[in-house]
Amino acid sequence: MTDRTLGTCYYPEHWPEKIWSEDAHRMAEAGLTWVRIGEFAWSRLEPEPGKLEFDWLDRAIGVLADHGLKIILGTPTATPPRWMLDKHPDMLAFDAEGRPRGFGSRRHYCFSHQGYLTECRRITRLLGERYGRDDRIAAWQTDNEYGCHDTTISYSDAARRAFQDWCAQRYQSPQALNRAWGNVFWSMDYDSFDQIGLPNLTVTEVNPAHALAFRRFSSDQVVLFNRAQTEILRDLTDAPLIHNYMGVVLDFDHFHVGADLDVASWDSYPLGFLMDRTPASDAEKAMFLRQGHPDLQAFHHDLYRAVGRGRLWVMEQQPGPVNWAPHNPAPLPGMARLWAWEAFAHGAETVCYFRWRQAPMAQEQYHAGLLRPDSAPAPALAEARQVADEIAAMPDAETAAADVALIFDYASVWAWEVQPQGQDFSYFGLVFAVYKALRGLGLDIDILPPDADPSGYKLVLAPGLATVPEGLTDQITGTALFGPRSGAKTPEMSIPDGLPPGLPGLDARVAYVETLPQGADRPLARGGTFRTWVEEIEGDTEVLETRSDGAPALLRAGNLHYLAGWPDDAAMTRILRDLCHAAGLSTETLPEGLRSRRTPTHRFWFNYGPAPVEVAGQTLPPAGVTWETL
Amino acid sequence: MTDRTLGTCYYPEHWPEKIWSEDAHRMAEAGLTWVRIGEFAWSRLEPEPGKLEFDWLDRAIGVLADHGLKIILGTPTATPPRWMLDKHPDMLAFDAEGRPRGFGSRRHYCFSHQGYLTECRRITRLLGERYGRDDRIAAWQTDNEYGCHDTTISYSDAARRAFQDWCAQRYQSPQALNRAWGNVFWSMDYDSFDQIGLPNLTVTEVNPAHALAFRRFSSDQVVLFNRAQTEILRDLTDAPLIHNYMGVVLDFDHFHVGADLDVASWDSYPLGFLMDRTPASDAEKAMFLRQGHPDLQAFHHDLYRAVGRGRLWVMEQQPGPVNWAPHNPAPLPGMARLWAWEAFAHGAETVCYFRWRQAPMAQEQYHAGLLRPDSAPAPALAEARQVADEIAAMPDAETAAADVALIFDYASVWAWEVQPQGQDFSYFGLVFAVYKALRGLGLDIDILPPDADPSGYKLVLAPGLATVPEGLTDQITGTALFGPRSGAKTPEMSIPDGLPPGLPGLDARVAYVETLPQGADRPLARGGTFRTWVEEIEGDTEVLETRSDGAPALLRAGNLHYLAGWPDDAAMTRILRDLCHAAGLSTETLPEGLRSRRTPTHRFWFNYGPAPVEVAGQTLPPAGVTWETL
Amino acid sequence: MTDRTLGTCYYPEHWPEKIWSEDAHRMAEAGLTWVRIGEFAWSRLEPEPGKLEFDWLDRAIGVLADHGLKIILGTPTATPPRWMLDKHPDMLAFDAEGRPRGFGSRRHYCFSHQGYLTECRRITRLLGERYGRDDRIAAWQTDNEYGCHDTTISYSDAARRAFQDWCAQRYQSPQALNRAWGNVFWSMDYDSFDQIGLPNLTVTEVNPAHALAFRRFSSDQVVLFNRAQTEILRDLTDAPLIHNYMGVVLDFDHFHVGADLDVASWDSYPLGFLMDRTPASDAEKAMFLRQGHPDLQAFHHDLYRAVGRGRLWVMEQQPGPVNWAPHNPAPLPGMARLWAWEAFAHGAETVCYFRWRQAPMAQEQYHAGLLRPDSAPAPALAEARQVADEIAAMPDAETAAADVALIFDYASVWAWEVQPQGQDFSYFGLVFAVYKALRGLGLDIDILPPDADPSGYKLVLAPGLATVPEGLTDQITGTALFGPRSGAKTPEMSIPDGLPPGLPGLDARVAYVETLPQGADRPLARGGTFRTWVEEIEGDTEVLETRSDGAPALLRAGNLHYLAGWPDDAAMTRILRDLCHAAGLSTETLPEGLRSRRTPTHRFWFNYGPAPVEVAGQTLPPAGVTWETL
Ligand SMILES: [Zn+2]
Ligand SMILES: [Zn+2]
Ligand SMILES: [Zn+2]
Repeated sequence: MTDRTLGTCYYPEHWPEKIWSEDAHRMAEAGLTWVRIGEFAWSRLEPEPGKLEFDWLDRAIGVLADHGLKIILGTPTATPPRWMLDKHPDMLAFDAEGRPRGFGSRRHYCFSHQGYLTECRRITRLLGERYGRDDRIAAWQTDNEYGCHDTTISYSDAARRAFQDWCAQRYQSPQALNRAWGNVFWSMDYDSFDQIGLPNLTVTEVNPAHALAFRRFSSDQVVLFNRAQTEILRDLTDAPLIHNYMGVVLDFDHFHVGADLDVASWDSYPLGFLMDRTPASDAEKAMFLRQGHPDLQAFHHDLYRAVGRGRLWVMEQQPGPVNWAPHNPAPLPGMARLWAWEAFAHGAETVCYFRWRQAPMAQEQYHAGLLRPDSAPAPALAEARQVADEIAAMPDAETAAADVALIFDYASVWAWEVQPQGQDFSYFGLVFAVYKALRGLGLDIDILPPDADPSGYKLVLAPGLATVPEGLTDQITGTALFGPRSGAKTPEMSIPDGLPPGLPGLDARVAYVETLPQGADRPLARGGTFRTWVEEIEGDTEVLETRSDGAPALLRAGNLHYLAGWPDDAAMTRILRDLCHAAGLSTETLPEGLRSRRTPTHRFWFNYGPAPVEVAGQTLPPAGVTWETL
Repeated sequence: MTDRTLGTCYYPEHWPEKIWSEDAHRMAEAGLTWVRIGEFAWSRLEPEPGKLEFDWLDRAIGVLADHGLKIILGTPTATPPRWMLDKHPDMLAFDAEGRPRGFGSRRHYCFSHQGYLTECRRITRLLGERYGRDDRIAAWQTDNEYGCHDTTISYSDAARRAFQDWCAQRYQSPQALNRAWGNVFWSMDYDSFDQIGLPNLTVTEVNPAHALAFRRFSSDQVVLFNRAQTEILRDLTDAPLIHNYMGVVLDFDHFHVGADLDVASWDSYPLGFLMDRTPASDAEKAMFLRQGHPDLQAFHHDLYRAVGRGRLWVMEQQPGPVNWAPHNPAPLPGMARLWAWEAFAHGAETVCYFRWRQAPMAQEQYHAGLLRPDSAPAPALAEARQVADEIAAMPDAETAAADVALIFDYASVWAWEVQPQGQDFSYFGLVFAVYKALRGLGLDIDILPPDADPSGYKLVLAPGLATVPEGLTDQITGTALFGPRSGAKTPEMSIPDGLPPGLPGLDARVAYVETLPQGADRPLARGGTFRTWVEEIEGDTEVLETRSDGAPALLRAGNLHYLAGWPDDAAMTRILRDLCHAAGLSTETLPEGLRSRRTPTHRFWFNYGPAPVEVAGQTLPPAGVTWETL
Repeated sequence: MTDRTLGTCYYPEHWPEKIWSEDAHRMAEAGLTWVRIGEFAWSRLEPEPGKLEFDWLDRAIGVLADHGLKIILGTPTATPPRWMLDKHPDMLAFDAEGRPRGFGSRRHYCFSHQGYLTECRRITRLLGERYGRDDRIAAWQTDNEYGCHDTTISYSDAARRAFQDWCAQRYQSPQALNRAWGNVFWSMDYDSFDQIGLPNLTVTEVNPAHALAFRRFSSDQVVLFNRAQTEILRDLTDAPLIHNYMGVVLDFDHFHVGADLDVASWDSYPLGFLMDRTPASDAEKAMFLRQGHPDLQAFHHDLYRAVGRGRLWVMEQQPGPVNWAPHNPAPLPGMARLWAWEAFAHGAETVCYFRWRQAPMAQEQYHAGLLRPDSAPAPALAEARQVADEIAAMPDAETAAADVALIFDYASVWAWEVQPQGQDFSYFGLVFAVYKALRGLGLDIDILPPDADPSGYKLVLAPGLATVPEGLTDQITGTALFGPRSGAKTPEMSIPDGLPPGLPGLDARVAYVETLPQGADRPLARGGTFRTWVEEIEGDTEVLETRSDGAPALLRAGNLHYLAGWPDDAAMTRILRDLCHAAGLSTETLPEGLRSRRTPTHRFWFNYGPAPVEVAGQTLPPAGVTWETL
């Protein structure tokens, strides 16, 4: 069994060599096990093309390892040096407006550029050859935060040519592509693959089939880019290979990238994410300003536990204020501990705080670390030390099996971004609304990719799943909930023959859909409303619940349920509670902000709320975490 | 006398040939008379340059005509095939940001590109030669929705060169142009016409005379593009020539385009328009969410009846939810009937529902049809059938002469877009506010171009008419209302000598104008306010009404009135009611959402409101339409 | 001692020569002393390259001077003629999106373009040679409103090359630049200066040191551009050299430009500025809609008095509605007088109304003048005449020394624009909030550049001063207030060693900062809140005031104070009042909208508010100005 461990992210190249040893000493003293290095250091590893300077890295590794720290070594491919642009002037990604995304920050490359890919293979091989069998290097990280800063998608020439090839592979003939996409619609037929452009800068909306194909292609390019590194490292090391996914970056399929890796790690910035990427109301944003949204971290832990096929890390954990959100408050005292324990409760093996010391220069000067720029301890250091002591007393990294499975599908993210039909419709928002309601009922959840086997789960939910894989409903042994908008598309982004949702055994068809602006919710007979998205259903299936106007709202055929709209929070909770009871699951009603997660041995409690709550026989203060033995 | 008829829009190229016959059979069964085809089919009519495939079209025409349907054949020039771009790589329009507007949707051409214009002439001639004398083709449509997706204006090189020629024609010498535009102002003088650029991407605002000239030019290019097709078709067919104008597309002069055509048709999407292009309050948008704005359709009917010199069609009628607005609710049951009857009441000969069957592929998958994608009837089919029965009993397409004339001038749209002076000022918004108030008073309205003869009307209104044509006031035999902002500009976009409005017989000058933000309305002595736009008037004319601060608000000289600001809705209604009474017109006060229109034989009533209303001795439910014999 | 005088801005080239004499006559009659001409006339002075036509200017000067008017002659370099583009096609500035900012309005040049700079030297020399010793030309204006329309910053190739040279001069080696900027951070190291790009269109945020260097460079280019003209004119004339700065244009260092000039003048458009560039609440914007913000003009007078080293003019004074703000109301009657008197009270020598006559053509048709387009008097003419009479009775342009000094630093504007950390943080907003509170306390204020000697002032304030100059605190003899965010950066935009603020004698360090969204203010123990920006302080300095959570809010060491957050208006006033009392300054509490300023002989009162106020023994109406003898 793996031990729970802590770590941090360190940049020896940023600091005078004379303080490395003191830093390492203090890391060990703080109870840290891991230190990640190297992922932005290409200009110092190879200051000129082919002129390699690894000796400083050797010395840094030595100092760190001498203090008992295990090293995660990053490939530096997220930050190509300036000279790379001279070698490969066309390596940049292009934005949707047709402009190159230039040098001067990071992630300035197009995933489709073959010249840059070759350079990445080269530096990866050099690092692998030098450090692959060095047992001080206990793990490897590929690149850094694929897709961060909207970098998955590029409209470069390299991307266009690669997309044409991708289309040729997928469709084999322009005529087949024309049929698949329905290009006859507006005389959009192609005669050859090299006529196909990227779906930007068109007069009005592009064919959604074209757009979705491009999104699939763009995701595949990330998979291939990552695989180019893992294929090399696999031959050269036995250490686990990891990527650090960025929170709420959904432009590529993390399950597909993760299939080539050993551990899924993610970068958790609860306060920044609350501000800039969480589907939350203004009231929630005010209430959780200094805690983060109570469900966003848990969602990602559950998601990446699936991506990592059970192996989950947090590679970067926010320790204090960050620099990049619209506003950047400090976490409540205790949150740096709470977030770590929440990760462990969800099965994480390791939590690394980002970064060791706040940098006084360059872009992230206002990003807190465990140390301040003057090397004094920042508030999070003591919290990390406390967690280190606590995990020493409860070392086993374990995951409890959940009764509830929630399907999350990256292709559905893209499908509904391409074609929201109403400007507020968001697949992530819908799935997150379901997840939030389930958590408020006190449940543990496993997140599954759409091609996983859901058998064994008492409750399986697949809201908004654009295309329902053949055979999925057969595999479900428990109660299932599909809809709204599940099964709404063929894999080529058309409306299926026979109309959605096309679920075996469920005699129901979506006659038409409506999207609604705020304030025009459609009331439900049993309370609450459908908001944003409403479907008109016909068919002979049992109706469990109706709208106030009598139209079907919730349908059933055996264990299979279909929800014909997006319920508001109150209705979502009611509907899911009933469904849980039907599935034989007991539920609770947790106070707002209180959340829990069970391991095989304990139930953990986390108070994200602004007020103390009574739980587990005690008063849990804001930012408090506690646990009960099961 | 022409009969009222229904029709639909059909795309045989989208469907297997084997279902054409069944489709045609069902169209006839639904009571439809017309079917429009062909307007997006260029890639199937000419799959390679010069390789013509008209046989499928022959067969489609045959099947449809065999079921008694009359065919409207569209020229396919709104959707040039992909190979056209290889022949004419510079044919694309450019947006104001300087980027080409590429292939992948529709309307991807610049009106000024001579190469593409030649191609359009060629395909039009080919179609005209084949089908012009075929009496199964009972009408022709040129292109599709000119100007839709902001396509009137192009900043391409082709447009720049054509604009230089246009300027040379209009001004004859650079010196004359410099004088006309006042280019001395900021040393903007030109030495030659080829120095003149397009008015985009300048450091700060361009000379409004330059901008207005470019808007005029851009409109003229649409006229010439359309005329290139009508000139060919006139020689080859006797069937009426029609274009389907898109609602609230104001970038070219529809009267000028319409002068080359026989019928003006328009595409009516009440729910989409309410959401994305109607000047309506949030309260109105909420109240009419599933009905559309009660005055927007009527306005367009009255407008296009003028454009068509009495001959009005609705070429595309929304039958259910559409796909393109920010939110897309379903119409209330009954609206598909109401909208059709409202068109007939305003003099329409034909209403075609768009489209026959909802397409499961490409851009408009969520756009309803009369049939669902699974060929089952959509809700609107029964409503269309009801209308078919009703018009069979009341077949005559007739128009009553109105007592009230409202002048609508495209050049004023452009003038005030170029120079709004306050960000909320909108000519269309102002004219629509007048129209709405008149309709609420129970009046019928004729819309006139600024060069029409307004004699005979009891009341003539010309709000915001930038340049008052010489002699217009002499032609008015009834009561007239000008202002605000009427006569404010010379044709070259200067302030006239002697100051606005410069109305013969009215001793009044606009000393200065003010534009006001929301919440800073200027109160009127008799109630209500001026909002958005206020004028300070001097002169010796009779003052009928003042602002609360004593300044003149409404002036009179004989039958000529001038309004010195933009009244809020309440004041607008009061002022217009008084004016009607002065003009000998009786008025009513219709409940919100109830609207009427008279034909020579009937008065029709339409309930756009969310509640039943008592009218014509009955309770008219929401979405209800009824009529009384006059 | 200089006399207070009035003037106007006139464009003889816009009007028929036959009316020049009448215009001049009326100017003199209105009591005007000055007339500014020539600054947009390049195309008429040099209609073709090298073909000079100065005779019309000679005649205009003659007519004006014959009526006793003193002439300010502008160099016409803000409006290069169209032929200049043919000579220097690459002279245009480029915007941050990478697009050239083209011909068709004004200010269409890049400050870094050497070819255009040479042309500007040439035309300046030609004008200087012809008119430099002509004593009818009593002052010179260089160019017009540097930086207006966001023209300071250009992303052209010329700018890039010049920036590379600037970097080479400043840093001497790429390695030194890499160290100064901390480029190691994300492998952003440069090997040579010609690799350095401009900080636009990067993938994510650029290094703030890079961005700040570019802002400094961009400011320096304006200084050099202006100096190219002053160096020539100095040899050719003894008349004072002036530039007319535009209000709230902060992209270049006005102190640096002003060092080469004799007088600082600015262009004052109170109503336009209120709408589009004043940090004011919605309530303030509604209350001062027709007056302008009561502190914005005063702030600029105080600022430019410093820029002009005591010599202040208003070169353009709004007389009525303007054309360029989002909404353009008319000033309350009396404001054209009030604004002029406020300028004089703050030490202005001259106030010129812009423009003499409203132009009926081109961009500024809706911009009021002293005359209407029909040459009738606009409302402001009588107010100007009244001011002329009043200053004849009180002619001496004098400035009283203030007790309070407020430091204003352009580099801090740029630093905090580059790195606001929270989206609401604005240096100008912070300084203006301090200024507004001081003025509400009835105080007079001097604004100082950061390198001025503040000794002798009873109170010195330096909020948000990014880098505190070495020795500044030693020079302060009175009470001082720094913070929030003062001393937060090294000159190279890093966090200083030892942490901010680093004030000698003050044992306080900013452990971390927080930025807060609206509604999440942090309460203060004595009332009010910190908003937007909050600092966590550690150290042993005396704490004068705390937040409600006990954290230090206001610190003191001797006369040196440090404020650890941005107070809301109420707390700001309370804190500054207490500080004034500690500094031996008495304060008042002026009613909202009432403001004052003292000269050596008088105290002037200005009522910006919408209601009458009792002051100086009288009832001062809205837009009223009065004075008491001291
Ligand atoms: Zn040690
Ligand atoms: Zn049949
Ligand atoms: Zn005279």
